[in-house]
Amino acid sequence: MGLKEWIVPQERQFFDLLDKDAGIVAEGAVALRALLRDFRNVAEKRKAIKDIEHRGDDTVHTIFEELNKSFITPIDREDIMALATSLDNVLDMIDAAANRLYLYEIARPSEAMVDLGEVLVEATSALRKAVAMIRDMKNADEVEAIAVEVNRLENVGDDLLNVSVAALFKEKDVVHILKAKEILEQLEQATDYCEDVANVLSDIVAKNR
Amino acid sequence: MGLKEWIVPQERQFFDLLDKDAGIVAEGAVALRALLRDFRNVAEKRKAIKDIEHRGDDTVHTIFEELNKSFITPIDREDIMALATSLDNVLDMIDAAANRLYLYEIARPSEAMVDLGEVLVEATSALRKAVAMIRDMKNADEVEAIAVEVNRLENVGDDLLNVSVAALFKEKDVVHILKAKEILEQLEQATDYCEDVANVLSDIVAKNR
Amino acid sequence: MGLKEWIVPQERQFFDLLDKDAGIVAEGAVALRALLRDFRNVAEKRKAIKDIEHRGDDTVHTIFEELNKSFITPIDREDIMALATSLDNVLDMIDAAANRLYLYEIARPSEAMVDLGEVLVEATSALRKAVAMIRDMKNADEVEAIAVEVNRLENVGDDLLNVSVAALFKEKDVVHILKAKEILEQLEQATDYCEDVANVLSDIVAKNR
Repeated sequence: MGLKEWIVPQERQFFDLLDKDAGIVAEGAVALRALLRDFRNVAEKRKAIKDIEHRGDDTVHTIFEELNKSFITPIDREDIMALATSLDNVLDMIDAAANRLYLYEIARPSEAMVDLGEVLVEATSALRKAVAMIRDMKNADEVEAIAVEVNRLENVGDDLLNVSVAALFKEKDVVHILKAKEILEQLEQATDYCEDVANVLSDIVAKNR
Repeated sequence: MGLKEWIVPQERQFFDLLDKDAGIVAEGAVALRALLRDFRNVAEKRKAIKDIEHRGDDTVHTIFEELNKSFITPIDREDIMALATSLDNVLDMIDAAANRLYLYEIARPSEAMVDLGEVLVEATSALRKAVAMIRDMKNADEVEAIAVEVNRLENVGDDLLNVSVAALFKEKDVVHILKAKEILEQLEQATDYCEDVANVLSDIVAKNR
Repeated sequence: MGLKEWIVPQERQFFDLLDKDAGIVAEGAVALRALLRDFRNVAEKRKAIKDIEHRGDDTVHTIFEELNKSFITPIDREDIMALATSLDNVLDMIDAAANRLYLYEIARPSEAMVDLGEVLVEATSALRKAVAMIRDMKNADEVEAIAVEVNRLENVGDDLLNVSVAALFKEKDVVHILKAKEILEQLEQATDYCEDVANVLSDIVAKNR
């Protein structure tokens, strides 16, 4: 068996694990959107998101364990760590927002929250595609295009937050303002973290193309 | 004098400084718990925590100065920097919480604040033990066990925050809600930073064992 | 043409780009101070700050592109990235504060906001000088002195925030408290990011002197 054949499974393993993780993050965003769109059975839907988050944690943990055991990695060790960590931040923030939607006993999500949930589904599904593409650097341009698109989506998220919080401040119930503002900020923070993932991907293709 | 003997004091010095810093951080948590448990002489106790924080700053400063002067370090330079920085973040947040307890003139800390203070004492005292152990990689399993325990304590802190803020939102005095929420968040943030220290320690033993 | 001559333009280019970026950040702080001091034509002044922020983004983007194309850099690649990123964080936070001053329709900035704007002008103008100095390591002591000064300014910013928020909590209009607190925190966060820039500069001269 030549060196090439011996390396290949190792390479595949890291890309497989990153794919799996990006898939779990996208799944978390879809579950959050479902909660935001149809605000019934909140406890149950919140629990489903927590389970997704745990699966994400396990996958990231496996990635770090494998990194510690591996001498050879298909892309820089630091880049694999940065990708796994930034994907995990997105999922943690999705989980935090779901948790507050449940804990704070709000009547129903605002329109801006539903819109931010939609933005998150778009961003995480684009990132999932881009993560699958870094196996082959001939996809570099497409990965770069997705990174640009996720940066655009983060700007959309930012505008949604700013405008909706400014509107929220015109409401009467201050405790409601506090609850809704925190949830909106966490949803927007999740899109910020999507941008971090996009920047890591952009860096990876710039270095390896 | 052989090379080994010449290196040893250098090695000891970094471990001594990190031990000292971890001890100061644990001391800060104990002082914060004392303030939370017995909310009298607040100005005086707050000042004592500020003094501890200054000693922490000086120690971190010395660590960075010594790193800049040293060609040889017992563990990776980046790991020493990450350990010192993450320990410093814990102490900064302990100081920030103490400062707000004083400045915001709250009547007395809530039960959840006292509980978070207890969690912080447990986490920082466990971290202090773990920092002392990285001198010898035969302690790797014990360091790893402490890292797992500090991760568990961070989850406890997270739950304490979420439940207590949800309860806080049922209170009437909105300004009190704002003050208490910020203090609770900072106490929980300090446990988050303890988790960062634990993760750095976990990384160090994984790489050097 | 010798190697030295061939390298020089490359070196100059990175320093030129960093200078340009530090100048744009300082310009952003001056524009924010102008808005805080004279709270008229808010939309127009807010737009001017957004334009400055876009120019900053473009410059940072160019720095990263050039880094990806360059095999040789005058100082460590990571240090150039850290410097550009930390400068960008300052400008982003200046822009975020300006945006909220506009969006939240506050009557006028508080005295503490004006003071924080002044601190930001001082810090960013000092950083601009220091960035220009790292071309030549004979300036190391002066760069270090500026880093110390920016650290001092961050402490001033921190005190301004703490005292003004404690005072703010004595006001009646809770929605106003929320708006003003967020703007004050963002102004202070911008001085925190100035400290990060100072720490990167301090690191660079410590490694290269």
